[in-house]
Order: sequence, then C-alpha cells, then structure tokens
Amino acid sequence: MYIPLIVNEILRFALQEDAGHGDITTSYLIPEKSKSKAHFIAKERFILAGLPFVGEVFHILDSTAVLRPFYNDGARIKRGDIIAELSAKTHAILMGERVGLNLVQRLSGIATLTNIYVDRIKDLKAKITDTRKTTPCLRFMEKYAVKVGGGYNHRFGLYDGILVKDNHITVTGSVRKAVKKAKMGHHLSRIEVEVRTLKEVKEAIEEGADILMLDNMSLDDMRAAVKIAKGRTLIEASGNVNLGNVRAVAETGVDLISVGALTHSAFSVDISLKIVK
Amino acid sequence: MYIPLIVNEILRFALQEDAGHGDITTSYLIPEKSKSKAHFIAKERFILAGLPFVGEVFHILDSTAVLRPFYNDGARIKRGDIIAELSAKTHAILMGERVGLNLVQRLSGIATLTNIYVDRIKDLKAKITDTRKTTPCLRFMEKYAVKVGGGYNHRFGLYDGILVKDNHITVTGSVRKAVKKAKMGHHLSRIEVEVRTLKEVKEAIEEGADILMLDNMSLDDMRAAVKIAKGRTLIEASGNVNLGNVRAVAETGVDLISVGALTHSAFSVDISLKIVK
Amino acid sequence: MYIPLIVNEILRFALQEDAGHGDITTSYLIPEKSKSKAHFIAKERFILAGLPFVGEVFHILDSTAVLRPFYNDGARIKRGDIIAELSAKTHAILMGERVGLNLVQRLSGIATLTNIYVDRIKDLKAKITDTRKTTPCLRFMEKYAVKVGGGYNHRFGLYDGILVKDNHITVTGSVRKAVKKAKMGHHLSRIEVEVRTLKEVKEAIEEGADILMLDNMSLDDMRAAVKIAKGRTLIEASGNVNLGNVRAVAETGVDLISVGALTHSAFSVDISLKIVK
Amino acid sequence: MYIPLIVNEILRFALQEDAGHGDITTSYLIPEKSKSKAHFIAKERFILAGLPFVGEVFHILDSTAVLRPFYNDGARIKRGDIIAELSAKTHAILMGERVGLNLVQRLSGIATLTNIYVDRIKDLKAKITDTRKTTPCLRFMEKYAVKVGGGYNHRFGLYDGILVKDNHITVTGSVRKAVKKAKMGHHLSRIEVEVRTLKEVKEAIEEGADILMLDNMSLDDMRAAVKIAKGRTLIEASGNVNLGNVRAVAETGVDLISVGALTHSAFSVDISLKIVK
Amino acid sequence: MYIPLIVNEILRFALQEDAGHGDITTSYLIPEKSKSKAHFIAKERFILAGLPFVGEVFHILDSTAVLRPFYNDGARIKRGDIIAELSAKTHAILMGERVGLNLVQRLSGIATLTNIYVDRIKDLKAKITDTRKTTPCLRFMEKYAVKVGGGYNHRFGLYDGILVKDNHITVTGSVRKAVKKAKMGHHLSRIEVEVRTLKEVKEAIEEGADILMLDNMSLDDMRAAVKIAKGRTLIEASGNVNLGNVRAVAETGVDLISVGALTHSAFSVDISLKIVK
Amino acid sequence: MYIPLIVNEILRFALQEDAGHGDITTSYLIPEKSKSKAHFIAKERFILAGLPFVGEVFHILDSTAVLRPFYNDGARIKRGDIIAELSAKTHAILMGERVGLNLVQRLSGIATLTNIYVDRIKDLKAKITDTRKTTPCLRFMEKYAVKVGGGYNHRFGLYDGILVKDNHITVTGSVRKAVKKAKMGHHLSRIEVEVRTLKEVKEAIEEGADILMLDNMSLDDMRAAVKIAKGRTLIEASGNVNLGNVRAVAETGVDLISVGALTHSAFSVDISLKIVK
Repeated sequence: MYIPLIVNEILRFALQEDAGHGDITTSYLIPEKSKSKAHFIAKERFILAGLPFVGEVFHILDSTAVLRPFYNDGARIKRGDIIAELSAKTHAILMGERVGLNLVQRLSGIATLTNIYVDRIKDLKAKITDTRKTTPCLRFMEKYAVKVGGGYNHRFGLYDGILVKDNHITVTGSVRKAVKKAKMGHHLSRIEVEVRTLKEVKEAIEEGADILMLDNMSLDDMRAAVKIAKGRTLIEASGNVNLGNVRAVAETGVDLISVGALTHSAFSVDISLKIVK
Repeated sequence: MYIPLIVNEILRFALQEDAGHGDITTSYLIPEKSKSKAHFIAKERFILAGLPFVGEVFHILDSTAVLRPFYNDGARIKRGDIIAELSAKTHAILMGERVGLNLVQRLSGIATLTNIYVDRIKDLKAKITDTRKTTPCLRFMEKYAVKVGGGYNHRFGLYDGILVKDNHITVTGSVRKAVKKAKMGHHLSRIEVEVRTLKEVKEAIEEGADILMLDNMSLDDMRAAVKIAKGRTLIEASGNVNLGNVRAVAETGVDLISVGALTHSAFSVDISLKIVK
Repeated sequence: MYIPLIVNEILRFALQEDAGHGDITTSYLIPEKSKSKAHFIAKERFILAGLPFVGEVFHILDSTAVLRPFYNDGARIKRGDIIAELSAKTHAILMGERVGLNLVQRLSGIATLTNIYVDRIKDLKAKITDTRKTTPCLRFMEKYAVKVGGGYNHRFGLYDGILVKDNHITVTGSVRKAVKKAKMGHHLSRIEVEVRTLKEVKEAIEEGADILMLDNMSLDDMRAAVKIAKGRTLIEASGNVNLGNVRAVAETGVDLISVGALTHSAFSVDISLKIVK
Repeated sequence: MYIPLIVNEILRFALQEDAGHGDITTSYLIPEKSKSKAHFIAKERFILAGLPFVGEVFHILDSTAVLRPFYNDGARIKRGDIIAELSAKTHAILMGERVGLNLVQRLSGIATLTNIYVDRIKDLKAKITDTRKTTPCLRFMEKYAVKVGGGYNHRFGLYDGILVKDNHITVTGSVRKAVKKAKMGHHLSRIEVEVRTLKEVKEAIEEGADILMLDNMSLDDMRAAVKIAKGRTLIEASGNVNLGNVRAVAETGVDLISVGALTHSAFSVDISLKIVK
Repeated sequence: MYIPLIVNEILRFALQEDAGHGDITTSYLIPEKSKSKAHFIAKERFILAGLPFVGEVFHILDSTAVLRPFYNDGARIKRGDIIAELSAKTHAILMGERVGLNLVQRLSGIATLTNIYVDRIKDLKAKITDTRKTTPCLRFMEKYAVKVGGGYNHRFGLYDGILVKDNHITVTGSVRKAVKKAKMGHHLSRIEVEVRTLKEVKEAIEEGADILMLDNMSLDDMRAAVKIAKGRTLIEASGNVNLGNVRAVAETGVDLISVGALTHSAFSVDISLKIVK
Repeated sequence: MYIPLIVNEILRFALQEDAGHGDITTSYLIPEKSKSKAHFIAKERFILAGLPFVGEVFHILDSTAVLRPFYNDGARIKRGDIIAELSAKTHAILMGERVGLNLVQRLSGIATLTNIYVDRIKDLKAKITDTRKTTPCLRFMEKYAVKVGGGYNHRFGLYDGILVKDNHITVTGSVRKAVKKAKMGHHLSRIEVEVRTLKEVKEAIEEGADILMLDNMSLDDMRAAVKIAKGRTLIEASGNVNLGNVRAVAETGVDLISVGALTHSAFSVDISLKIVK
C-alpha cells in the first residue's frame, strides 16, 4: 500500500508524542540489544484495517523490524486470532506498541462499523460514503479504513471536490446563484450542492448541478427528490443517518448515503500485543 | 490556556490536511474580502471542552479572527445554546469550520463521557483517570478534555512516569526483578507496576513499588489487594472498566480507576456552525 | 487572497535559501534600525501577477512592512510604471528583494504568456488550461498566475482528478479496461482519458469517459474526434501546442487546449526594486 | 553527487505537492505490487543535467528503485536517445514521473542554454556566471546545472559573498563609504561592488574593492573600466547580456559575465518517460 | 542505544548548519566516489561519551558508513588511543567531521567532569545529579553523558516532574500554599520544593512534599534540614556546588547534590579525526 | 538585530525540549491569566551578549511580552546589576526562564572570554577569530557573541569559505595539488590552506593561496612563516592557543589567531531571573 509522505510524518509525530525523550521504564529494565517476537492478538470479533501503518510504525523505530501478517486488511477476525507476528528489538516493540495498537484498533473499529452499515443495505443500490468528519490528522488512514470496510470515499478535503453547503448559500444568496458561480471550477470536478427543500432541489437541477446532497430531509422528501431528479443527477442523503434508519433511507432510492458516524464516533476494537519470546 | 507549540503544529497540520491547495468551492463563490459572523450552536446536551483550540484554529487562518465564547470549557450545554460567536473573514470561517468542529465535537464528547464516569462514583474516594489509549497526535487535547470532565490524568507518555507492564515482566523474568531495576529512575518519579495475581501484589509491595495497577482482576481480588496494601501503595484498577461496572470497582476501595474508553471510544457531540450575517 | 499554509512555508524556505545565516553585505553597511521606502518599477510591458506573495515575503521578514500596490494582479503594466511602494526596515527590503522579484517576475511572465494564448483564440469557445508541468514547489503560485492571465486550471495534482494516461493504458492493457476501473473513484470526480487514435476515442466514449485528452493528434483527427463525441464528452487537445498552431487547434472545435509551455517555459519579466528614501 | 539535506527536503515537498493524499488514478488502475521498467527518452537535442536528482526522487518513493543511466550529466543528448532506465514499483514510477521530468527538463534546459553562451565566447578569457535570479527553492539544483553547462557559479546567496549593490550605495551615501564598511567582513571573503560610472570604478579601486560589477555599462565604458583596473581587480559585466551581445561584451576584456537569463528565463527540454514492460 | 526521533532531527539540523549548500572545498578537491578510512584519535585523557551519536551523524550523510568502535561509551581513554575507525565516502567523512567531533568532544567533557564529582564523594551516599542548565537543543545527549559519567538525571524538563521553585512561591504566596496546590498533579509524580530556610523546610514536610531542594543553604543549615526531615523526604542540595565544596556538602547527609556546572560549564576534550587511507 | 528564520526555529525547538506538553508545576500553581514583572539580575561580572534572543524566546511564548533592556549587548555588567525587565504572562515567564537564561548565560560567557583574549593583545595587530568548534545548532548565536566580545568571525560553515585542511591534503597528495584544484571555486572566495611546515608555507604561496593557516607551529616557525610571506598572504595561527600563550603568538606577527576555546570550552556566567511583582 502506498503510504503518503505526510502519513509517515504523522506516524513520526505520534511516536514522538508518546515516547518523548525516551521510554524510561524500558530503558531501566531491558538491555538495548534484546530482541523479541510478539503477537497481535484479537480480543473480540472485527474487520481488520490498518496493518500496513502498524508495519510503518515499527519500521520507523527499527529498520530491521519485520511484521509478518497472518491476516490482511479486510479479513474478518475472531476473538483469539493471532493477527500478525512482529520480530524486532524489544525496545522498538515496547516503544511502538501503544501507537501501533491505538491506530489498528481505531481503524479496525471504523472498518467494522462501516461494514455493518454496508451490510444492512447490501441488496440495494445505495452506497455508504464517509464525510470530512474525521479525526484531525488521521484523515487518510480513516478514509482508507472506510474502503476496507466496503464503504466509498467522499472528497478528501476542501480541495478535491466542489460541494456547495448551507453557509455558502447563506452568503451567496441562493442555490441558483451559488451553482452558477461554482461552475467556474476545473473541468474534472463535478458540482455537488446541499439542498434543504424540494424547491432547492429543482433550482439546483435547473442550474446543472451534478449531485445533490439532501440535508436532513424526511423520507418522503427524499423520495420526491429522487423522482424530480429522474437520474439527471446523483442524489446523496446526508444528516443523522444511523443504523436504525439507514435501510429506510436507502429504500428511498438515493444513490449515496454519507455517514459521519463512521469516523466521528467510531469505537476501538480490542487487540493486545504480547511478547512471546 | 497554554497551547504547547506542538499543538499549534498539529492544528496547522490538520488545517493543511483539510484545505490542501485551497477551498475551491469557497474560492469560486465568495469574495476574498467578505467578512461574516457565525454561531456555534449545540444540537444536544453535553459538557463543553476544546473552545481555546477552536480559537487557535481560526487565529491561524485569520489573525484578525475573534472568537467570543458565551460558555467556557466545563460548562453544561443544552440543545439550542449558542456556544460562541465567531467574527472573521468568511473564507477563514469556511476553511476552519470542519477542523474546528471536529475538534470541539470530539473533545466535548470525551469531557461528557468522563463526567458520566466521574458522576457515577462521586461519593467514593476513587478517581477516574485516562490512559495512553488516545488518538495519535491528539493526546494533549484529549487529556485536557478528560480534566475538563472531572477526570485525572495518568502519565502523558512513556517519558514522564515509570510503569512496569506485563511485557516488561515477561522479558525481565519477574515482578521482583523488574521493580528492582526500575528503582534506578530519576528521584521525582514514583514507580507503578502492573500485577496480575495477589502473589505479584505482595512481591511488588515488598520491593517498594509506589503504585500497583491491578490488571483485569476480579472484584474479590481487588478487595484483597487493597487489604494487602494497607495504604502503603496506591492501587489502580485497570482493564475493561465500563459504565456498568465502574461503581462496583470503586467500591472495592481502589484509589484510581483508569478507563481507556474515555478516549479510545469517545463519541462526538453534535455542534453546528451557522453564518448569521 | 488566501495563501495556503504550505505556500507560506515555501516562501520561508526560499528566504532561508537566499539569506542563510544573514545578508553579510547589509549587516556591515546599514544600521539595524534604518527604514526605507522602495519602488517596484516595471522595465517592460506585461500583465502583473503575484503581488500578494511579494507582500507575504516582506511580512515574514518584517511584521511591520507595508506593501502599497498601485496596480493589482491582472493589470496591464507599461515600462516605467511604479507597481507598488514598499515601506519596511531597510534590512528586510534588501533581504527580501531577490526572492520577491524572482517570484513576481516569473509569475507575471506566466500571466503574460497565458494571456497571449488566450487572446489568440478569444473569439472561439476553447479554453486554455495549464498542466502539471509546473516548477517543483511553485505549483500553487504558478496556477494562480495562469488564472490571472485568463487561463483555466487543470487538476492540481495526482490527487484531485482522475486522468488515465498512456502509461496507465500500457500497464492496464487497453483504454477500455482502464476506463472501467477508473470509474471506481469518488463520485465528485469526472474521468478523463488520454487517447491516441480515433479507435480509442470511440472506446473511451463507449465506456463512459467524461473527458478525452487527444494526445498529439493531427488537426484532422481532432476534428474527427469532436464529431464522434457529439458533445457527449469534453474534448481536450494536448501536446506540442504553441503560439503558431493554437488557433488552428481551437478551430477544430475542441473544448480545452492544455499548454505545458505556460509554466514550463515561461520567461521572467523585468522589474526592479529601487530604494527611494 | 552530494545532495544536501535541504535538497532532499525540497524533493519531498515537490512530491507531496504533486501526489497529495495519493495518485487516485493509479490506485484504481494498477495493483500495489506491480513492478515496471521505464525509459527516459529524449524528444530533442540538449545537454543533460539533473539525473542524480531524478534518482533521488524515485528513491524517496521506493527504496528499491534503480535508475540506470545510459548517459551522465553533461552528455550531449540527441533526439531519440534513451537516457536512462528506471526499474521500480509501477506506483512509484507513475507518482514520481512528473516531478522527475519537471526537474530534469528544466535543469537540462539551463545546462543547454548555459552551454550556448559559453560556446559563443569559448576562445576568449571571460567566464559566464549565474546570478541569484534562480527559481525560489531550486537554487542549488539550478546552479549545479549551470556548472554542468560549462558556466561558473557566482555566490549562492546573501550569506557567502559580499556584493555591494546600488541600493546599498543609495542608503550608505557613496561607493567610497560603502566599500570602506564592507571591508569589516570575514577575511575569506573578497569584496565586490556594483559600479555605474567610470568615476565609481576609480573610487572602488582606490578603496580596495576586489571585484567590480559593471552595471549596464556601454561597451566603451566597459573597455575603459578594464583599462583603469589594470588587472588590480576582477571585472564583471552585468545587466541585459543576451546571446546577441555576449561576444561583444566578452571582447571588452572583462573577466566575468553574469547572465540572469541562464536561470530566470530557461526553457524546458522535451523528455518523456515510457513504461516498456 | 535508542536515539529519539528529535535527536535525529537535531543532528540533521546541525549538519545543515555546518554544510549549508555543500562543502565547497571538498567539492573542488576530492572526487565524489572516493572512499576513505579515518581514525578518531584521543589527544588527552577523558571518559568517552557520545559515540552512538557520531555514528548517527555519519549514517545520515552516507547510509553505507560504518563506525567501528574500539572503545565504548564510559571507557577511560588515554592520550593516543584510537577510539574508533570510520569507513565511509570521503565526502561524508569531511562533511560530518566537525559536527561529529563537536558532539563527542563536548559529551566526553561532560562525562569526564561528572565523573570527577562522582569520584570525590564515592564513599558517601549522596548522588550527583544534573539540572536543566543544559545547552539548548542538546539536553537528551548531555543528560546521557551525565549518566555515562556516573551521575544521575534530574527531571528532563518542565513536563516530567513537579518542582516548586522560588518564583512559584513568590507568586503563590508561601511554601505551604504552593505544595498544597502541587498535589493535584498526576499520581506518578513526586513533589519537590525549593526551600530557603529551616522554617520552609518544616512547612514543606508538614504539607507532604516528597523531596526538598535546599537552595544555597549553609552547611550548618543543610545538616539541620537533614535532621528535621528524618528520612521522611529526600533532601537535595543545590546552588554553587563546585569541586571545592562538593565533599563537604555530601557529608551533611543530603541524598542528592545537583550540579549545574556539569553541563553549563563543561569543557570539550581534544579528539582529532585523521584520514588514514 | 536580524534573527535568521532558522534561529527562530532553534529557539522553538529549545522551548519544546524544555516545556514538552507543558509546565506541570506552573499549571497547578498559577492561574492562566496571571501577569508578572521579572528582573534579570547579574550574579557576577561579565560582558552581556544574547539579550535579543532572550526577547525572541519570550515573544514566541507570549506575543504581548515586553523585554525592556537596561543594558545592551556588549555592556560590562557588574554583580547586582539589573540587566533587563520582563513584563509578560507569568506562565510565559516561567516557561521561558530556563531557555532564556541558558542562552544569555552561555553567550555572555563567550563574549566575556573572547574579550579577555582580545584585551590581552589589544596593542598588537593580530585579530582573534572563532572557529567551527561551536555548539551544534547554536553557531549563529555563538559567532554573534564572539563579535560582541570584540573578536572576528571566521567562515560560518563548509559552504562560505574555502579552507584546505590536513585531511584534504592527505587525500589530494600535496599542498601544491590541493591549492591548484581549490582555485576553481567562485571568484568571491579567497583560498586558505592549512600548512604544517615551512616547506608547505612556500609551496602554498607559490600556488597563490590567499591565506595560510599555520597548524600547531612553534613560535619560531610562525616568525619564519611571516617572513616568508612578506605580506603576500594573510597568516593565521591555529591550534592550542590559550590565554597563556596568545600574546607570544600575536608577537610573531601573524594577522589572525583562531581560538577554538572561545566557543568549545566557554563557561556560563551567572544570571538569575526574579519575579518582582
């Protein structure tokens, strides 16, 4: 997997944050030259995501570290499974342990949660997508986890997709005016607009928007919007989607359902790292 | 509030992650010189945490930005409350919106969750503490949120406290040997040891450990450990503490209860940012 | 104008590159406290671009520096015009002079060259766009200069637009296979494909490509491609476009003409900075 | 070739600028594990410069990448020549392609242009030197290309040579005063002074300047200045030198001719990168 | 030895500081491909400290460099001893020479000086510790050298130990108030207080301080403080300790003696680097 | 005083090194909003150097901090003098105290020591210069302190002066060959050569070296070298110069005496910072 240079920087930052001027406990207890093998062991069921980042973490600390995976990202892990075996300097294992676990636990949580959403509507055409409600600094990794879980990525940031939102419309004056101006962007970008009423749905379609984001609409309005669009635009449902209502939302016929909770309220799965020799 | 230089760096990184080469939507829709006022509005009940970081985010983007708080960190916020008013360039508001919200939503979630734990045992002597299971790069801010919620901070990293854990003991050979070696650390650090059995509890106390971390012990064993210690060491309960069992754990007489979930499985509260003129 | 944080970093890097441990000549000749006024004076005709970056350069060196523009980016400047007046510490003026001039001279050169291309086809529908053939580290500023000159921006990098190029097709096997796979990208991106023959034009359209980049095609083939597309896709002409043939290319009916020379072979215009008191 | 740490940083910055959060096209089209061979092919005649930096670019992306040069920097390349063969991960090839080409195309352009100047006066004693009119952030690489083309380097920045320029003289009051003060610098630096009249030539020599930079003087004045100096100082001609007048300037007897155009108005040569298997 | 990521950064910074855009002398004199062997030779007696950092310096410049130590940190070196042999590219040897020597000379000076202090009181119980009076940016390496010399580390910074100093007491109002507040810190930190009088000694003990730092007290007062404490707290002597009085101070019965001079006034030992082939 | 961008970075690094995630003592003892005045008080006699860097340190922590100097760099300070008054947030004062003091104490030590050397030979023509034996990362500030003390700067690094040293000669083969090659450098650099014998003195002069560095020569050989040179080159004495022999060295007639001890074995002067209200 390609790990962008900035992700490498973030991992270094995270290691620095945890280790500071050194792991003082380990420095007093364990000789510099000690080498160990350690197992990543699952303490519950989940979908694995983030192992390559864990490998990078240990590689930064010890260029001779080897992380041998027994499962790959995307695998369904059961309680008790040994996920991977790490061979490295004992100091590196203990210094990278918490950062590595914090990452893979969180990313696997995201993949697992995403997969539950995806599974719930798997016989329908709608796709589950993420949002920009990711943890600051971890966006690349979290969006990767969403894909591992079967979801789709929305834009990565403010820079790679045009999305006219409520505050833009407030300042610009109307959906109509906003879409007109947005069409000046580069020709590779589609234009998405957040709309709150069926009137705005029509207005946006007339102005040639490519995608509509229905903001917190009722199921009835969603159905109406899908009808109005007649396939001329993609329709994305957005706002307060949860496991309880995602199927109903999908049944309205929308193309995309964006779910902030995939990343902003993800839990961490339980994985432990045990030195075995 | 003092914001460490590294937190400022992290915020810049987060802004860069989101804005990249620019907010293309805004650049097409809104004139450079436009200024606006915007409100942070609560969409649910929670305890506020992180407002100073939000101020810093907008200050980085626009040195003339002013964030006027109507509530301070620690306040109990109700649905519909206007938390703060932001006056800044419209471009800065829209470019900082997501990073600012992602932070304050997550940090308020942590403070709120912490407070629920704290509240549940408020008539007992045990203190709720955080762990190192924080989000990579956000440790300072997340530990701050724990304090806002009424919790206590455990060590910040591997560098500012000696904590002998299971893997250390595996490599060193025994609790006894490990504690002996750990006492070589600097004189300002207490020594904490993770123990798994009552036999290890005794061993650690004999060697002069200052704090014992009881790792996943039964309530009975916790009570026994407290008895054995007779106040000679602090006792910390750790492992799988949740809202269902935290009170029972506290009633065993332990001094500290560390809860990874405060930060590794925190939810985000719902706050929106609306431009008002 | 919004200056991304990374551009600020690039400007600091450039200043550091030029000034190193200090401007030794100035340190021996001119007292620390000396303040001066200086004029940016045009030595030839051109279209101005990059003044806000010049302001940022001097602001980095001296937070009290004031750059008062007499013309704005986009203005047609004549030989002898005083473009702007800078009031700052003399040390800051002399330390920022070369970096500031190098930038504004290059960016104005790009805007001026772009404008000549744009002007040559101003009565036709085709738009002039830039490419990724920009100077390493200066992409944001150079693409800005293209817009100032009346051109349009193509994608900013590999990350904000899907463009299937010849090497992709070589590895994937065919245009058909490549376009199919590319459609997995996020829903806000259109898909552009580089095609070399009319056969590939048809294949790409059948697979649903949004934009075709005609790679070094003859004028006749361009005309044929436009006919085949019948408006179902945008058509971009690319490769060896120059001032001699740009009009002929535009007359084939293509929508976009991308011109690498706008940035990879831009000249610098001549501007000098003179201290006036 | 020694590549300074800051050049490595610049290359990383350039890669980050182009690749951002990833090459989305390639990520959808080509498997992570794919490896390829690719050829750098010349599309025109030029003098090669910059290949070691290209090697560094691909090494940053893929530590197993091998760039096998068929020609070395300084070689005269003909249209159709295969310059080098790159073996690397296909993802690395496609992610580094544009940065690598942008660099080697620009640097070869500089070496080629420099060589034309050098060639024009090769039977005369004058040397062609560069200036500080380089592209921000690329100075080290551009000055390297000037040497490859047979030119000489002037100072690298404000920090490694004393050069009293017109603005210094304006503030200090006179050439005489300025040179006096400049002699306080460290003993390893010679002192160069920009002079505009024959009177200033004399003044500078009397004060003991080591080198005179004749600023935009007529050919007659240059000849007179050379005569006045009688070899006591080096003489550098500067300002508006071009291919049309460089020989006439050299024939005045000056020692050095500095040519800003070598770097500020260099063209890029045409090189393509083709995957061959 | 574990070298924190920030130390690697500091070494890169130091190399950049010295080498800038390149070692111009070497670039003109010695071919790129030249390889050499060189010896680090002691010119006086000392205790060696810092060799691993020297290895890192050369590894940064040349990943194939090998530093073969003949002595390890802590060894007593005699005039004429060959400390280590370096095999590397000649360019790397000459570019890293000064930074490597500056470090190992300074760190060995610190270890040697520390050892003299330690030796003077080796039959007494008091331990010699360092302070925060280290060279900015070199704290990790300097504190490492103190340990090599037989000393002990005090806290690393403001962040890993609570130490209430005179200015805190001035602002807070009294030792009593200050200690009370300080006890809110995390449970792994002991609390140390600077006291100036015997009255403050008593006050601090009553409030439960863990360690007392006696600030510039007379020997008589130190003896009295030790008596008052009766082993309930550790006692640290501080202020104006030198080789002349360190033994008298230790004989008062204090537990710790902190000596700023170990790092703030260390001399450099004399080591040279000679290329041998 | 102009503070290069990299010095600002170094100061931030130093602050980060000391403060880490925060000054925990102060955070528990003193309210965020507290403001104080503090005095820098001399505890011994010295020459002041480094005050502007101290100002920068506090400005980084608190942009409203004001450092009012009562003396300027270069002043002769007496025990008890109040050097400057700092008004700032109490948190900023306590967080910057150690970094600020460590710097000004060390730099004043360098200025003071330099001045003693300068004073000893003040009636002779020789100048005292520094070397590259500075503390890693502090070179700019330390060389500044040398100037404050009345000394002169030698080159700043490997990049701004050509100095052919013993290892260069070993690899190149002879002084003669080395000087010949070195003359290819840029025309603003003089060429200095380290020579060990009178034979090498002659060889270097014949080849046109500009400056000779006499390496550890006897006083007799120095006198002979001065005679041989007859003013055709500058002569620098180098190696094991100390306060005991500096005058004798100067009396040999050399032009420059470089003294590594100015920076590599400088002591710190004693200054304290006291909060006064």
